[in-house]
Amino acid sequence: MHGLMMDTQLSVQLILERAKQFFPKKEVITRQANGNHRYTYADFYQRVLRLASLLQQLGIKPGDRVGTFAWNNYRHLELYFAIPCIGAVLHTINIRLAADQLTYIINHAEDQALFFDPSLAPLVKQFAPHLETVKNFIVMDEIPIEELNAQSYEKLISEQPTDFVLPKITDENMAAGLCYTSGTTGHPKGVLYSHRSIYLHSMAICMADMMGLCERDRTFPVVPMFHANAWGYPFASALVGATQVFPNHFMQPRDIIQLIEQEKVTVTAGVPTIWLGIMALLEHENFNLENLRLIVIGGSAVPVSMIEYFQKRYNIPVVQAWGMTETSPLGSIALVKSNLLSLSDEEQMSYRVKQGIPAACVQIRAVDDDGKEIEWNGEARGELQVRGPWVAKSYFNTTERAEAFCDGWFSTGDVVAIDPEGYIAIVDRTKDLIKSGGEWISSVDLEIALLSHPKIQEAAVIAVPHEKWVERPLACVVPKPAYSEQFDKEEVINYLKSKFAPWWIPNAVEVIKEIPKTSVGKFDKKRLRIMYQDFQWPVG
Amino acid sequence: MHGLMMDTQLSVQLILERAKQFFPKKEVITRQANGNHRYTYADFYQRVLRLASLLQQLGIKPGDRVGTFAWNNYRHLELYFAIPCIGAVLHTINIRLAADQLTYIINHAEDQALFFDPSLAPLVKQFAPHLETVKNFIVMDEIPIEELNAQSYEKLISEQPTDFVLPKITDENMAAGLCYTSGTTGHPKGVLYSHRSIYLHSMAICMADMMGLCERDRTFPVVPMFHANAWGYPFASALVGATQVFPNHFMQPRDIIQLIEQEKVTVTAGVPTIWLGIMALLEHENFNLENLRLIVIGGSAVPVSMIEYFQKRYNIPVVQAWGMTETSPLGSIALVKSNLLSLSDEEQMSYRVKQGIPAACVQIRAVDDDGKEIEWNGEARGELQVRGPWVAKSYFNTTERAEAFCDGWFSTGDVVAIDPEGYIAIVDRTKDLIKSGGEWISSVDLEIALLSHPKIQEAAVIAVPHEKWVERPLACVVPKPAYSEQFDKEEVINYLKSKFAPWWIPNAVEVIKEIPKTSVGKFDKKRLRIMYQDFQWPVG
Repeated sequence: MHGLMMDTQLSVQLILERAKQFFPKKEVITRQANGNHRYTYADFYQRVLRLASLLQQLGIKPGDRVGTFAWNNYRHLELYFAIPCIGAVLHTINIRLAADQLTYIINHAEDQALFFDPSLAPLVKQFAPHLETVKNFIVMDEIPIEELNAQSYEKLISEQPTDFVLPKITDENMAAGLCYTSGTTGHPKGVLYSHRSIYLHSMAICMADMMGLCERDRTFPVVPMFHANAWGYPFASALVGATQVFPNHFMQPRDIIQLIEQEKVTVTAGVPTIWLGIMALLEHENFNLENLRLIVIGGSAVPVSMIEYFQKRYNIPVVQAWGMTETSPLGSIALVKSNLLSLSDEEQMSYRVKQGIPAACVQIRAVDDDGKEIEWNGEARGELQVRGPWVAKSYFNTTERAEAFCDGWFSTGDVVAIDPEGYIAIVDRTKDLIKSGGEWISSVDLEIALLSHPKIQEAAVIAVPHEKWVERPLACVVPKPAYSEQFDKEEVINYLKSKFAPWWIPNAVEVIKEIPKTSVGKFDKKRLRIMYQDFQWPVG
Repeated sequence: MHGLMMDTQLSVQLILERAKQFFPKKEVITRQANGNHRYTYADFYQRVLRLASLLQQLGIKPGDRVGTFAWNNYRHLELYFAIPCIGAVLHTINIRLAADQLTYIINHAEDQALFFDPSLAPLVKQFAPHLETVKNFIVMDEIPIEELNAQSYEKLISEQPTDFVLPKITDENMAAGLCYTSGTTGHPKGVLYSHRSIYLHSMAICMADMMGLCERDRTFPVVPMFHANAWGYPFASALVGATQVFPNHFMQPRDIIQLIEQEKVTVTAGVPTIWLGIMALLEHENFNLENLRLIVIGGSAVPVSMIEYFQKRYNIPVVQAWGMTETSPLGSIALVKSNLLSLSDEEQMSYRVKQGIPAACVQIRAVDDDGKEIEWNGEARGELQVRGPWVAKSYFNTTERAEAFCDGWFSTGDVVAIDPEGYIAIVDRTKDLIKSGGEWISSVDLEIALLSHPKIQEAAVIAVPHEKWVERPLACVVPKPAYSEQFDKEEVINYLKSKFAPWWIPNAVEVIKEIPKTSVGKFDKKRLRIMYQDFQWPVG
């Protein structure tokens, strides 16, 4: 027997209408070269309607993919809403990929139109000739680019009516967004979000124990809008009427921290590498961060030193969240449960550096090599599997890596232990594990320790082939500028010896200028492994 | 084209499993005559499994309705979860109704079993002989009641296995709960909740801008579990792992406030009448309310004096919410938006006493007598209509009042104005309106003013027939104890004259001992109107 509740279909339209009806005066702010661009949700709504009208005029039909190739800015936000609100699919494309990857992704997605920032035109020129399905190029600017046959966004929408009526989204399971991940082997793979998944994920982000986004917030995710929907912030912020702040391409630590100060940002989020850079800047310059109430960190493990730094110096909680493109992305968050608040600060910290407990709606388990569920004892290790209404059930239009979706669970590729309190701790990526003489060594644990060392700016630990032990850990570190001339490797080794079993200690420390980064700003251990594949271990 | 997200079905089972997996040490606390009963969610889970097993053994099948007739206590909470978790329907029955209404409701619902508190056995005896479908009576106690052929809950579940496997809820739209409302004309009518509606409503309650329920909370809704699922608190609290506190039948103001103090309650909710009683008690006795962070008031309009009292004396925000059994119940909440925070305290108060803006997922409009949408100008009046995934689309098994569900909207019966900021203000119930000489008078506005008068404890304003004006307002007031001997009606009239247009002023003030209350504790204006139907207006 069915309940007798209304069949309301959760959709991006509902979010858009809510922002316009109840928060019309709240602002969307975008950094520009000549001062910040600001307008209200009321203005935003009018432009979204014009844009929706334009999309229909361009022949975009329900289900069609429309590509965006842009920084975080208000026009990108307009596309975030207008494309799904006419039933089409918002395909956010990673601007940091190489031209051949971009060609593959856009052709695979079969994008019908491509919207791009004028500053990215040189990159678009590289792959535009190879695109097979794109019928319209639109440059997100006042001025067209003839060379690319790209029309002006502003001119096109200025010609559209403001009284366009959005077609109704009649099925919440309709596709609404598409994002390719290159975190897997083989070709980049598309994750196809639905209106339902976006709506539920937005609600979850606003729950008090998740990120608690609310109307009074001024949100600024330092996460690209081409990366897992900027962690869902643009949709969730509109749902609750929060002010949204966008950095455009001004993404240096000083730009970011100035914008946070200037626009009184209350909540921000990003990968640790961004915050390592900001911490380095804060060592030398003062900024007023009194409005910031929460820094959410995800993408890689958070060093203790970062949590302590912002807590002690600014009284701002750094909260770790875990997720993937395949999980929309919120999978889990390292809230400290009230029954743990009686523990010492140090013991509480041991929970705060874990990946936390799953978000509402998300379920977890971890399985060992035999596919058996591991015990939640904090010791046993297995691959983390998740399921939930905003977790992918397959990749878009490919049979590659179908084995990741099995028995209704998605296999994340993260090797974890789960403690009796239910906290997930990622000990490694399945492909990052170091197996030395038959024993596992967690590169992640070593990296967390290294990043907490006062003289180290960046660190990554990789497995390098070894004659005797099959493979052994190599630590690659970037010293802080003040120590770059006089960095003592032996000191680092001794520091690690005080924390880990002898056989965990890297056989060598390599001092380098920068750890290579992935397109979404994480340490790129794949490239690091290639760099050091022929590394000669010191003798003895 | 559909998205490629997992088809996770939102269900009460997901809430139950989450509470057990991630919050097993958190407590459920119930006041008892001999000290408070306490156990953990881990204990709770075991008992829910036994109870689920019992229900199956009793022959309860998916879709079957199972009645509960009980106060707020841990066994009732077990039923809240066990019944929907085997696919059956939790039918919470209002213990304050008369025997013939109860007979009607239970027969209409076709309850297959009835669980009741031992203290309510005398009432059950009155209607038990007239029940047509109930096959099993179970008394929520250690001891059976032979006279009623009622078996002992504790004995029955002690015989059940603890490793019972719950059948999977495969469709989130399955019915999960049933609650009858007597707020309409004609027979009581059933509202049939689904697993989906309960889950979404639970998430919404936990959103920061709604009630922000979280793991650290200790919740105590002073709302019966037979009334709109105790405003959703039992489900939402379990979802986030909050500690739950239940008063059982100890419902006097002193009982309530002592339990809040003793169990360090952080969030509570109830109708204004309960809080008027508590305020009267707080005038004479001191209690420690330092843990209380939020009082949610709904069911009737909140007097300014109550908001001010708790704000000034205890620094506790009193937040008004609006809803109905038909809306699960959260419809709207009177959050003060950040763009209003620059207004004076008095102007902000004018928003806090409104019913607020709709919850996420809920949409609103108001229509005039011609069915035309009214303008959101704060002046125009119309009947409030709502829609959303936890709003009823029809009543259970009846065609009565089908006209309330039209065009995908539910007509609430509340007459409202909506201001340009989107705040709903209930100016009256359609059936409570006073129309004097062709002009509308809001009984609610008059009541709010009266309840803020320092000498008045309770107040209700009703329409009474009048020769010249068709009808005129009559104010019925209960003075505070200190003023009961020397209450000056003229002073009250002058007080109202300072606030309202002359033609709004009641033609008479009646001093009475108590305003009659409905079964859910609201002022019963229907009974008041009957009491005064032959009232003789004073001459002149």
